[in-house]
Amino acid sequence: MTSHIRFAVLGAGHGGKAMAADLALKGFQVALYNRTLEHINGICALGGIDLESPQGPMGFGALALATASAKDAICGADCIMVVVPATGHRYLAEQCAPHLRDGQVIVLNPGRTGGALEFTKTLRDNGCTADVVIAETQTLIFASRSTGPAQAKIFRVKNAVPVAALPATRTQEALSVLREAYSQFMPTQSVLKTSLDNMGAIFHPALATLNAGRIESTVGQFQFYIEGVTPSVARVLEAMDRERVTVAAALGVNAMSALHWLEMAYNAVGSNLHEAVHNNPGYRGITAPQTLEHRYIFEDVPMSLVPISELGRAYGASTPLMDAVIRLASTIHGTDYRHKGRTVERMGLTGMSVGEIKQYVEEGTL
Amino acid sequence: MTSHIRFAVLGAGHGGKAMAADLALKGFQVALYNRTLEHINGICALGGIDLESPQGPMGFGALALATASAKDAICGADCIMVVVPATGHRYLAEQCAPHLRDGQVIVLNPGRTGGALEFTKTLRDNGCTADVVIAETQTLIFASRSTGPAQAKIFRVKNAVPVAALPATRTQEALSVLREAYSQFMPTQSVLKTSLDNMGAIFHPALATLNAGRIESTVGQFQFYIEGVTPSVARVLEAMDRERVTVAAALGVNAMSALHWLEMAYNAVGSNLHEAVHNNPGYRGITAPQTLEHRYIFEDVPMSLVPISELGRAYGASTPLMDAVIRLASTIHGTDYRHKGRTVERMGLTGMSVGEIKQYVEEGTL
Repeated sequence: MTSHIRFAVLGAGHGGKAMAADLALKGFQVALYNRTLEHINGICALGGIDLESPQGPMGFGALALATASAKDAICGADCIMVVVPATGHRYLAEQCAPHLRDGQVIVLNPGRTGGALEFTKTLRDNGCTADVVIAETQTLIFASRSTGPAQAKIFRVKNAVPVAALPATRTQEALSVLREAYSQFMPTQSVLKTSLDNMGAIFHPALATLNAGRIESTVGQFQFYIEGVTPSVARVLEAMDRERVTVAAALGVNAMSALHWLEMAYNAVGSNLHEAVHNNPGYRGITAPQTLEHRYIFEDVPMSLVPISELGRAYGASTPLMDAVIRLASTIHGTDYRHKGRTVERMGLTGMSVGEIKQYVEEGTL
Repeated sequence: MTSHIRFAVLGAGHGGKAMAADLALKGFQVALYNRTLEHINGICALGGIDLESPQGPMGFGALALATASAKDAICGADCIMVVVPATGHRYLAEQCAPHLRDGQVIVLNPGRTGGALEFTKTLRDNGCTADVVIAETQTLIFASRSTGPAQAKIFRVKNAVPVAALPATRTQEALSVLREAYSQFMPTQSVLKTSLDNMGAIFHPALATLNAGRIESTVGQFQFYIEGVTPSVARVLEAMDRERVTVAAALGVNAMSALHWLEMAYNAVGSNLHEAVHNNPGYRGITAPQTLEHRYIFEDVPMSLVPISELGRAYGASTPLMDAVIRLASTIHGTDYRHKGRTVERMGLTGMSVGEIKQYVEEGTL
């Protein structure tokens, strides 16, 4: 066990607690940060997290530190795993900016759409000049849950998780650290690929919206995918998925269709999304959110749909269905998600041509 | 009983059969038309329709004629009651155009949005020069059902149904005929008022869309209003209702809010639409459509939402939520409802200023 690598895990939610415990049980030194100290009081008291896991190491993962100070958590870390909702990426970048040092690797687990781009721009805007590697994953490596104040459970570890750094010339630097802990991480072309293969953008907000009445009136007492993805709903998901793939094409990126992804990730096949979703045993038993105040909307609309729609608007691919769902979700939550979301400007791409974006994400030079 | 007035009822669906039988039982001479002869074979064989009704006359309503010939049905009619989905208005206008004669009164029950405008333009485009009165109602006077091949049932007769002719200077001509049969018809300002007070535009398509998964996966086994209108869904309905009232304002029309309408029509009050809907006993027990292949979408999207959205676009009021629902519904049904729907052009208003429209609907002179 190569335990010389020191990790900081930022975020002590469902994903962060599982990852911190898992890394600790694998022998790495781990510092865990959470913005709200009260949420990690139990972990501070115990000095670690009890982990249940079907595939990896189980037991008590002792942490070097649990703190509400981002500075203390990242000080001395080789690799900083950011495991928070994408709505928190900008805040964390602001917190980290003064304290980063050359050589540190920062990984957004996952970036949703435009995470590494926004994180990088925020560091720059906050005067950070450290030579760090910023990467993002396409999805969270675990399906996991926080099961108590200092307890977490991993249900499943995904087989292959694409990763890209910004620029892609530095992806191998990130991977050389990451793969000490997780062999599942695989390199992919660029952060545009991880960002535009964001499948939550397709499934989460539209499925919640087209089942809005049912989620609220039954408090989520139905199977989200198996009962929520009906033939008509699937037609909307498919058309929205074409919008995503088209935006990617406009940026020169060959995105994977949701249908293809279901086959890759779950071996679930079908002649359309309705069939493929219903042929995925992994979706059976997954119940709906109990409320519409859920990250499927408050994270995936501003941080997944909005950046894809905004990229489409800027680079010539229209996204009418995404725009429809953004509008309905904004009304449901009484907020302006397009205004709050990741715009081209927030991703640091304002005024760039497609060729310049390609160079920026692949080479880093402009 | 003043039975000298001869009615033609066009359409033998839930509304048309009930109205034909009701008029016949009230002593009027009635000719019933239906485009598809097979649907009225039973009526032809019996020579009339058996009507169940809690408030009006009940029993066998003998018809003078039941026919698939619009010409035969309207020949000799003083008043032509059009009781078909609004998607059929244009076809019926084309069928009637060559056979209308001076003095006939044509009433669309209801017009949805822009019915009288489209009917008038279609007659003109088809060379009709007869001096007819064309009117539309804001809603169907009955809640009724076809209960068998030659059977119909009226559940409820509404108290007050606004009517306007195009132009409004002729509304009294229409009413003088209509009120021989139904004292519930009341004059209102113009067809813009009946068209923009179309409440189905607000409730039907959005409620179906935001409950799409549930309608399809349960085959409509839930209470459409009581369970379908949750707080979040109500927020969408309210915001969409503001769009409708704003479009009306842009056209100089003071439309009634849905909240106000619930109080007027049902004595249902509340501080918001969620409360008012749940305070309406009239909505209890109304189950959802069993399928999304329902007039709540295929009629109300192209004939209610699209004309309101198109009027907004032409006269300076944006309707982003209506546009979102139009887009989702178009994808659900795999069709382009904006293209198929009632545009400004189809309503015969192309190039008119707001002042010219006002003059057209109120005075008829241009």
